Amino acid sequence: MDIDIPDMARRIALGERRALARGITLVESGRADHRAQAAELLGALPQDRQALRIGLSGTPGVGKSTFIETFGMMLTGQGLRVAVLAVDPSSARSGGSILGDKTRMDRLAREPDAFIRPSPSQTHLGGVARRTREAVALCEAAGFDVVLIETVGVGQSETVVAQMSDVFLLLLAPAGGDELQGVKRGIMEMADLIVINKADGVLKSAAKRTCADYAGALRLLRKRAQDPKGFPKAMTVSALEESGVDSVWDTLQELIAWRREAGFWVQTRADQARYWFEDAVKQTLLAVLATPQARKALSGLSDAVAAGQVDPATAAQDFVDKLRAN
Amino acid sequence: MDIDIPDMARRIALGERRALARGITLVESGRADHRAQAAELLGALPQDRQALRIGLSGTPGVGKSTFIETFGMMLTGQGLRVAVLAVDPSSARSGGSILGDKTRMDRLAREPDAFIRPSPSQTHLGGVARRTREAVALCEAAGFDVVLIETVGVGQSETVVAQMSDVFLLLLAPAGGDELQGVKRGIMEMADLIVINKADGVLKSAAKRTCADYAGALRLLRKRAQDPKGFPKAMTVSALEESGVDSVWDTLQELIAWRREAGFWVQTRADQARYWFEDAVKQTLLAVLATPQARKALSGLSDAVAAGQVDPATAAQDFVDKLRAN
Repeated sequence: MDIDIPDMARRIALGERRALARGITLVESGRADHRAQAAELLGALPQDRQALRIGLSGTPGVGKSTFIETFGMMLTGQGLRVAVLAVDPSSARSGGSILGDKTRMDRLAREPDAFIRPSPSQTHLGGVARRTREAVALCEAAGFDVVLIETVGVGQSETVVAQMSDVFLLLLAPAGGDELQGVKRGIMEMADLIVINKADGVLKSAAKRTCADYAGALRLLRKRAQDPKGFPKAMTVSALEESGVDSVWDTLQELIAWRREAGFWVQTRADQARYWFEDAVKQTLLAVLATPQARKALSGLSDAVAAGQVDPATAAQDFVDKLRAN
Repeated sequence: MDIDIPDMARRIALGERRALARGITLVESGRADHRAQAAELLGALPQDRQALRIGLSGTPGVGKSTFIETFGMMLTGQGLRVAVLAVDPSSARSGGSILGDKTRMDRLAREPDAFIRPSPSQTHLGGVARRTREAVALCEAAGFDVVLIETVGVGQSETVVAQMSDVFLLLLAPAGGDELQGVKRGIMEMADLIVINKADGVLKSAAKRTCADYAGALRLLRKRAQDPKGFPKAMTVSALEESGVDSVWDTLQELIAWRREAGFWVQTRADQARYWFEDAVKQTLLAVLATPQARKALSGLSDAVAAGQVDPATAAQDFVDKLRAN
């Protein structure tokens, strides 16, 4: 495939969806020549556009798709352009992506101001993370106002999503008070906003109780410098009845305004850029291990090491010496 | 420093303590020429000696030093040679190693059949882990029967210690039943044996209660293939009164005999060797980032990336291209 990178960059900057989709496919590719083209594309895009990047985590069953659809429709209703991306470390295992079926959010998928991208299926979370970060950068360059980055609540993926988000939302379902411990402390500490969904029908009072429980738990967490008074917060919504999502948006706006004012917005973005630069350097150096020849040599040496014929350090040194000699 | 590697290897294989100590200093060094010498040394050592590698974790205050001393003295009393190493991810921060003062275990330190090595102070856990794994290999080649690898209970370090251990002990202090949650589930799942220390004096009954609580909790964990009936176990000891440590040793012997018989011993060692080989390959490839020139270039580019002058991917590609051109 011969790609005209400057043309692709120009089209993405004009907001052309087809070019954006093709650009994301390019950054998602693991091939060495595609990596170089991806770097060229990212370098050719305007660097001065900033979307609000919202990280969103929630285990299956909390109504994440419904929330994203309702939240996204509210934003497009206000004239904002919304992109939805996903980081799904389990997609390789389950054989499909959590966003694989756009019919899951079928109203939002039909919106001209919305762009939904299924998660890439990869086994290596590090690689998925970097490529999603680059897909976010493409969406920003394409002029989207809000980029929602969705993940499932498994711990490691939250950390990488937080590294590419301005704010982080944790979506939960109503539960008994003693289930509060089910949410890992580390994930709670990442959240800027905990949103209890399904505050409707028979679950309404349970949702309010769960919300109060989490609000209490959040008050016990260590105070973070980047939080204004009253944050992190817990709130209830009903994505199904479309109530409460506007309050979520208002609350996020309040938080962001404070962080911009206080300098945390710029600081966080700068820190994140450093993080992804260092990550990209490491991944680029390690990319030599992904060629078929390297994999074959690694596998053979790994067998010899496992059989005790050679120690790991010597085998590693030999392997790298040979790699560099070629 | 000009090192005669074959001579050092020969002396270590003869069990010479001074050579062993110098060998460990060599594998702990981060310098590129030392790394190459370390690989040469590891390759020159006998590969057919196997110590029992015991991982040991416990937060400060549980009486870990007293336990190691009592346990170690019991083993040397049986004519076994014992080495004690430490992985301490916090040592760089605290400015000293947890084993920095050998007077902490002063009886064991004076034993001719015991070898105590303070933990290296490093900021990067990955590096510490690999070097400790290599120090374990040196101790095995030097003919030690048991290598104890100590760490503090912070999560990440347990994972790497488990990757270099045949069995994993978690040392705890007596506690109220509701404090049981204080131990992370992931660490409990790693343990082959949970040992409640301080089962003496006024704490004796609390220790027995805590032991029963953990025994109950262990029964709820997922059954692991590598466990015979009744494992993982919880037991009480008093390191101070020197009671119970012989039962710990007998129980470990029972577990190990079963695993050897069932093939898990060989399998686990083979899997661990593969893990450390792959880790060593990655670390060797990334070692180019540790030179002063590379650090300087990285730092400058990182500033440009943070300032938004260039995107992370382009900067990374440029950096690696220049690195390879030199």
